[in-house]
Amino acid sequence: MAVNLHAPDSKSLFPVLGIELGWAEAGIRKPDRKDLLVVRVADGASVGGVFTQNSFAAAPVLVCREHLAGGRGVRALVVNTGNANAGTGTVGLEAARASCEALAKLIGCDARQVLPFSTGVIMEQLPIGRLIAGLPQALGRLGQDHWLQAAQAIMTTDTVPKAASRRVDTAGTTVTLTGIAKGAGMVRPDMATMLGFVATDASIAPALLQQLTQRAADRSFNCITIDGDTSTNDSFVAIATGRGSLRIESEQAPSYSAFSDALNEVARELAHAIVRDGEGATKFIEVRVEQAATEVEARQVAYAVAHSPLVKTAFFASDPNLGRILAAVGYAGIDRLQPERVQMHLDDVHVVLDGGRHPDYREEDGQRVMKNSEIVVRLLLGRGRAGASVWTTDLSHDYVSINADYRS
Amino acid sequence: MAVNLHAPDSKSLFPVLGIELGWAEAGIRKPDRKDLLVVRVADGASVGGVFTQNSFAAAPVLVCREHLAGGRGVRALVVNTGNANAGTGTVGLEAARASCEALAKLIGCDARQVLPFSTGVIMEQLPIGRLIAGLPQALGRLGQDHWLQAAQAIMTTDTVPKAASRRVDTAGTTVTLTGIAKGAGMVRPDMATMLGFVATDASIAPALLQQLTQRAADRSFNCITIDGDTSTNDSFVAIATGRGSLRIESEQAPSYSAFSDALNEVARELAHAIVRDGEGATKFIEVRVEQAATEVEARQVAYAVAHSPLVKTAFFASDPNLGRILAAVGYAGIDRLQPERVQMHLDDVHVVLDGGRHPDYREEDGQRVMKNSEIVVRLLLGRGRAGASVWTTDLSHDYVSINADYRS
Repeated sequence: MAVNLHAPDSKSLFPVLGIELGWAEAGIRKPDRKDLLVVRVADGASVGGVFTQNSFAAAPVLVCREHLAGGRGVRALVVNTGNANAGTGTVGLEAARASCEALAKLIGCDARQVLPFSTGVIMEQLPIGRLIAGLPQALGRLGQDHWLQAAQAIMTTDTVPKAASRRVDTAGTTVTLTGIAKGAGMVRPDMATMLGFVATDASIAPALLQQLTQRAADRSFNCITIDGDTSTNDSFVAIATGRGSLRIESEQAPSYSAFSDALNEVARELAHAIVRDGEGATKFIEVRVEQAATEVEARQVAYAVAHSPLVKTAFFASDPNLGRILAAVGYAGIDRLQPERVQMHLDDVHVVLDGGRHPDYREEDGQRVMKNSEIVVRLLLGRGRAGASVWTTDLSHDYVSINADYRS
Repeated sequence: MAVNLHAPDSKSLFPVLGIELGWAEAGIRKPDRKDLLVVRVADGASVGGVFTQNSFAAAPVLVCREHLAGGRGVRALVVNTGNANAGTGTVGLEAARASCEALAKLIGCDARQVLPFSTGVIMEQLPIGRLIAGLPQALGRLGQDHWLQAAQAIMTTDTVPKAASRRVDTAGTTVTLTGIAKGAGMVRPDMATMLGFVATDASIAPALLQQLTQRAADRSFNCITIDGDTSTNDSFVAIATGRGSLRIESEQAPSYSAFSDALNEVARELAHAIVRDGEGATKFIEVRVEQAATEVEARQVAYAVAHSPLVKTAFFASDPNLGRILAAVGYAGIDRLQPERVQMHLDDVHVVLDGGRHPDYREEDGQRVMKNSEIVVRLLLGRGRAGASVWTTDLSHDYVSINADYRS
């Protein structure tokens, strides 16, 4: 069902010096499937992380925040699928800590240098014994070329493994970035969580990397939505191993913008892959708001449109029932919006002129665009120069089937 | 498909002195169906009105606001289905005015004493000629006993006509309240709009009636949601004809609270009917938030849960996948929510204790409740004494079918 999305070729995923990946079939929830990933990180790497704003943040998220705040650096990630370890109280917190301790002991580092991640069913206790028992198998498979297997190992209801990679020549050297994600996120918040990991061989000052990670998330994972649900486990982590020759110490560094662009691109490609693999998705839709007074209000309008079940079902039906989009703009809560200044374009078709139906708009033009699998909705608010895009999908019968039947 | 909702018996709808209702088959969108309603109001009635907050408010809403602000009183309502007259610019505004002028001429009043309402497809011009041509038929059918036909005449995709009526003995006299609604509202915002009209024979000071109308809306129509979409045409109007013997001049009047309670009850019954007739609804769900710091935050949490497609699909599947509810509470945006203080009950089952799964909670207990057609989700936040309820439905395959196929 994924919209124009295919599994990446393993050869297109460049190894990152200082990163090794291994997986196991630990039987966390079901036997004989990849459900445990260990990422081993060379000594001296810097790390940036962005986590869910959900008040019911999962136990591993709490531990990640704590370990990152400790500033001891990161030597490994441990990721399980099948169980989110969320809504699990102190027992869950102890389990998350135990997974770090067990892995630290096996690889010889401090438990506070391990970051844990979980994704799966909420409100059930993590089978920590099976997770720990699976660690040696994962460590036995560690390798630099295992990005595709790593992408597979973090899948839950994903239908396609998600990975992206770039090599960029800058400042007389080559920098590599490779990342994986699962979607999840707002897409499948029960088999919870969007998880994203990107590694690079560049050397980046920790504070700068944190800033770059936050910005990349804001322009990618924070701009996608399937159903508006935010999971308890959402996490995005970027690791800079420093094993390559590129060094970025500040925003003034000559390679800063080339690197930042590459990181944003990888993050966006992963985020788009999550939307394309969205539950029941048949269309990939960009809602682009322009001429807003602020970026905040542009996002507010874009999200109102992207979250409207009526807009989403119209896209599913390829029905140019475009008054629904206008209604969503109207209830987005923008103070003193002047409807008569609003324009709407559907790809190349000018649908709304000055707040009303464009006199030249013909239903068959709308119909033609609605049949496409990739559609851009452009909304001009006539209030200023800010803009924002949100990426989303339609709402189909399969969405209901997947979410209604998921646990059965 | 409506959940425990049946058409009212015509005899249960008490006439209101000073109110006559007539309908026509005007062929606004389709031939041979009731699609035009005229409500004639005796001279001297007071009126209160609450309208959509959508920036793209429809032309009739703009005209209603203008006429009510004029303070000339109300002698008639004219309501059409089949076309929302929204997103129609100045042409639409002229059409709404023309409908008032035509009716005013026929009944001999000022056009500014007529309130227009429309519901139906957005962004298409109202066929004003057919509407005006239908007025004489509607006037020829005027009668005090036509509340059920009136409820039928404002239906769009409603499957059941919605009406409610009360007679209350108070202060040595009897007051009558009768109302109709269509749902619509956030339920079917394309065949747009929730419309509600309630009339009483009491005499109520205009400013007081406006306040009572706003409060009744806040406790009824503003507490329901199917999909979170707010229409361009939502309107709720209360008319007090003063033809009975009850007079209410202030909040201190001895009958004030009895009347206020009755109005709230009628409004709530109509609002619940809209939810029960929600598109594809198989369940009627109350999300009741207690122990909130403020009523605003209680509603915020209740809406987050009621809007979550994941929660709604779990209800559709009768699957006690209750972590989804907890996740929605977590992302409701409540500042400094302490998860460890949150309790959740599903009817009589205590599911979440202090933010985690209750140790005694058994899946089969949750399963038993989820199978019911009416369910109360109680969420205790442990932050204060405020509370609020929101009523909603599940999200089913039929919701997608109805909204995807509606215009085809």
